[in-house]
Amino acid sequence: MQDVLNEIARAMAAETERGKVADYIPELAHVDPQKFAISLATVEGARYSAGCATTPFSIQSISKVFTLTIALGKMGDALWSNVGREPSGDPFNSIVQLEHEGGKPRNPFINAGAIAVVDAIMMGHEPKETLAELLSFVRYIADDDSICFDHTVAASEMAHRDRNASLAHFMKAFGRLRHDVDKVLGTYFHQCAIAMSCQQLAHAGLFLASDGVNQPSNIRVVSPQRARRINSLMMMCGHYDASGEFAFRVGLPGKSGVGGGILAIAPGQGAIAVWSPGLDEYGNSLLGTKALEMFVQRTGWSVFGH
Amino acid sequence: MQDVLNEIARAMAAETERGKVADYIPELAHVDPQKFAISLATVEGARYSAGCATTPFSIQSISKVFTLTIALGKMGDALWSNVGREPSGDPFNSIVQLEHEGGKPRNPFINAGAIAVVDAIMMGHEPKETLAELLSFVRYIADDDSICFDHTVAASEMAHRDRNASLAHFMKAFGRLRHDVDKVLGTYFHQCAIAMSCQQLAHAGLFLASDGVNQPSNIRVVSPQRARRINSLMMMCGHYDASGEFAFRVGLPGKSGVGGGILAIAPGQGAIAVWSPGLDEYGNSLLGTKALEMFVQRTGWSVFGH
Amino acid sequence: MQDVLNEIARAMAAETERGKVADYIPELAHVDPQKFAISLATVEGARYSAGCATTPFSIQSISKVFTLTIALGKMGDALWSNVGREPSGDPFNSIVQLEHEGGKPRNPFINAGAIAVVDAIMMGHEPKETLAELLSFVRYIADDDSICFDHTVAASEMAHRDRNASLAHFMKAFGRLRHDVDKVLGTYFHQCAIAMSCQQLAHAGLFLASDGVNQPSNIRVVSPQRARRINSLMMMCGHYDASGEFAFRVGLPGKSGVGGGILAIAPGQGAIAVWSPGLDEYGNSLLGTKALEMFVQRTGWSVFGH
Amino acid sequence: MQDVLNEIARAMAAETERGKVADYIPELAHVDPQKFAISLATVEGARYSAGCATTPFSIQSISKVFTLTIALGKMGDALWSNVGREPSGDPFNSIVQLEHEGGKPRNPFINAGAIAVVDAIMMGHEPKETLAELLSFVRYIADDDSICFDHTVAASEMAHRDRNASLAHFMKAFGRLRHDVDKVLGTYFHQCAIAMSCQQLAHAGLFLASDGVNQPSNIRVVSPQRARRINSLMMMCGHYDASGEFAFRVGLPGKSGVGGGILAIAPGQGAIAVWSPGLDEYGNSLLGTKALEMFVQRTGWSVFGH
Repeated sequence: MQDVLNEIARAMAAETERGKVADYIPELAHVDPQKFAISLATVEGARYSAGCATTPFSIQSISKVFTLTIALGKMGDALWSNVGREPSGDPFNSIVQLEHEGGKPRNPFINAGAIAVVDAIMMGHEPKETLAELLSFVRYIADDDSICFDHTVAASEMAHRDRNASLAHFMKAFGRLRHDVDKVLGTYFHQCAIAMSCQQLAHAGLFLASDGVNQPSNIRVVSPQRARRINSLMMMCGHYDASGEFAFRVGLPGKSGVGGGILAIAPGQGAIAVWSPGLDEYGNSLLGTKALEMFVQRTGWSVFGH
Repeated sequence: MQDVLNEIARAMAAETERGKVADYIPELAHVDPQKFAISLATVEGARYSAGCATTPFSIQSISKVFTLTIALGKMGDALWSNVGREPSGDPFNSIVQLEHEGGKPRNPFINAGAIAVVDAIMMGHEPKETLAELLSFVRYIADDDSICFDHTVAASEMAHRDRNASLAHFMKAFGRLRHDVDKVLGTYFHQCAIAMSCQQLAHAGLFLASDGVNQPSNIRVVSPQRARRINSLMMMCGHYDASGEFAFRVGLPGKSGVGGGILAIAPGQGAIAVWSPGLDEYGNSLLGTKALEMFVQRTGWSVFGH
Repeated sequence: MQDVLNEIARAMAAETERGKVADYIPELAHVDPQKFAISLATVEGARYSAGCATTPFSIQSISKVFTLTIALGKMGDALWSNVGREPSGDPFNSIVQLEHEGGKPRNPFINAGAIAVVDAIMMGHEPKETLAELLSFVRYIADDDSICFDHTVAASEMAHRDRNASLAHFMKAFGRLRHDVDKVLGTYFHQCAIAMSCQQLAHAGLFLASDGVNQPSNIRVVSPQRARRINSLMMMCGHYDASGEFAFRVGLPGKSGVGGGILAIAPGQGAIAVWSPGLDEYGNSLLGTKALEMFVQRTGWSVFGH
Repeated sequence: MQDVLNEIARAMAAETERGKVADYIPELAHVDPQKFAISLATVEGARYSAGCATTPFSIQSISKVFTLTIALGKMGDALWSNVGREPSGDPFNSIVQLEHEGGKPRNPFINAGAIAVVDAIMMGHEPKETLAELLSFVRYIADDDSICFDHTVAASEMAHRDRNASLAHFMKAFGRLRHDVDKVLGTYFHQCAIAMSCQQLAHAGLFLASDGVNQPSNIRVVSPQRARRINSLMMMCGHYDASGEFAFRVGLPGKSGVGGGILAIAPGQGAIAVWSPGLDEYGNSLLGTKALEMFVQRTGWSVFGH
């Protein structure tokens, strides 16, 4: 397996078309587009990595998987009264669908949906408390207390919040948010500004590959049914309006972030994290997707057949 | 396994909320809503059934899986220049997306996309020839030469073709169809009017569960990669704007038809066909979905974890 | 007044940017873009013209004013149950609004609305009879029995009918049309293929400028209220999604056609017809609009102030 | 003329279906739905009123006519680079069109457009200064220094700003606003919270009826061309997605406010202000529209013919 990852890292290093690094905030724009990392955590407890797999990067929207997990733990199916679970067919920051459907976001992974999930887990608490809880959870499932928020990134996102503020105020106008818009956004941007390495991320996602049980600690994070359902949401909506493309090419539940990371889940096998900062036109890591495609070809771990 | 199917059939027989039988053509409206059937064909060659599993019904949109398979065989990836592969987020007969995207349908399973696929496989031939080819293929993969078109259903669909005619003319206006609109529609309605039983349908779909190889005959229908890709499309788009819901509840690639049938694929395990004529608000079989949900709970065959 | 028209004709002859002649059918594509004509018919019975004002051209969508007048005469306000009277904000051939609003077109001047109006006036008759009635009406209000359909244009439109066929089948699917789609379209394309000169057109439109009374014959065509209402519809919707621009620049009720003609109404003053085949990006005559803008500057006949 | 207004006031007093008073902020919800007023200011300098024509009410969106006038005075046609001038076909607070058209609002009278106009006139100044300028202008054209903002209404609007905040942040994200969103909104809500009586409003609007000249003072406010253009915008967009209906029934340029007021302009004749707090389903005064319809029937002042 280590050979597979090494081969992928070599192939990706040779790629010249590396996509476009996100540039809407300076903190992301300055990331080196040559970076590449891939890590695998298997359900048997093995760990494999290639590339700069211990370098932390901004996980951005990948964090939505973790807040969704927390929200389902707190509220269960009540969450679905304010968030849908269908692919949106629209870009991650589209507001059109909100207007057509009474301010209810299509799924928890488009920005509007993730903001609604943050509002749901706040439950009257201050951003600080909610963020502490979130960080504890991420450190717990990654089994690593060194994981932190990047406050500079969060502050920069807040300063460029207009598109997301538009989504949040829109939902607030329809009674879909209970907390102050700026507090929800502040929490949301910190959540997105969690910095993790591929090694940490693969470890953190492993419970989704092993029916809800964290490995090798063998502690249950969620029920098997909930793990399946989160995986289904990642498959259907994890790459916004390119989710079909990811399913077609890779065939694994996955969640991308604008920082260039992707977390993919191979149920019964393991969790794979990749990182390459350059994005495709849909805002998903160009080489990250390519690396996962290659990984699945080598391993036969697609959920759709060997 | 037979016990599982029997249990499901008993549970479904006891359901009083059975959905609404499609009534836009009289031929479908007259089907008995009490009917229920389920069949499983496994990759090892076993066959299990419960309910009226040898009664033919109108497979309708399930046929889109078979024409897609033929089209990919004829054209390969060239097909994707005129059809996308993303979930649409819209109902099966929506035209809004077509106008926003230059007449190119989002995926091959919404009506517009399926009509474009039919146009692609016609390749200058007359409807009669194309239909003969289609029927041969379906009989071949089902290993059953008794399968036929229901010409009464096809004629009735043609008489009520306005919504689909609107889609077809729209695509034609954008140069997305090469053949005469009425000929394409005539072919399309015959395709949808194939009558099959659950036993036949499960058999016909088995190649998708076994990496492209028809069982027990062991004849390759498509490559493993193509089988995976068709499965991914069924997962992402097979239930229109309720595909997310199906993935969330059932967790298998599936394709529904307005006749009340659903074909679901459990990669590496088998193909399952269910039939219950009553539909939910999205046009998918109400009890068919429920039966599949129960089946996956019993078998643990979800692609997203046991 | 003759001097004003002469000055306008001279100015337009000097223009080098003349727009793009409609080219979706060959019959329109071959019209000479250098052609220009303007005619004025005043409520006092005076007639003024400049340019090739006796050359017939395809009036296309200008005809929608005449069929609307006939429809209101036959059905009165019952017409509005199947056609709205609001600006659409969309291009003339958009279908998006139809899907969002149950197949009911926003107004009688977008293509969908005009097709619904044609269906309304057919009242069970054959296209031939409806067309005879329409031609009689146009000849009557233009006081000129030489006006004819251009059957070659009509046949060519029919052969390129896909976009309009899509609209018609969509409305038919929602029960908005009572007649056979192809018969309605055949009638519609003949209506659009009426050939008239600017002199004939100005004369034909005069009843709208003089409270519903045809001049100089002094015969009432419609009530004063109906004339006002038709004018309001021309103002609000007569130039599709550039109606605001026309109101801003010209300030008169007007209806354009893709043949390059525009009929404008100055209530209490007269009817003005212009013709220049080159179109702007919205499908309205580029120089025709410019000529009318100049005309209103010279005469002060804007309805919005001198 | 006084008899006409008296007759209208009597007729409106007798109406039992009075619409629904706006209730999104308590300050508007508490207004007595029985109130009715109508005032006419003629270009000859005459004044007529009936009902409680000296009672101030919240003019709300009618104020958009005045800020548009100021903006055109400051920037001229440069304003149109960030605001369109077409009917939107959507409700006053819709955001869909913004997403489809790069954050550029369709016209200056929908909320998004009016917010963009406020941003345009701020020109780097603080809200206080901009508001002082606006109030001076309104007092000047109404010739009445007693006109004031209702700060309670403005504060309440600010507290319920989510829908408008969504629009503003969306435009800000597309670079359409130059100032801080909350400052722009604070200014906008104060603008809408101007309290005026029908007498004051008719007087203030008179320059639009008399080619830009304030009467009886004979001082030019805008050029004749600008007056015409503002009138055209009121006609095309002044009643949001019911502008066509207003043109059809009333036939005058008009601008409504959610406080129940309407300002209508009869070019060359006079300005008419009406007030009745109950609204129709589009957010326009139900009896205000009815009163204007009756007024035009009696006077024959429709711009579309007598």
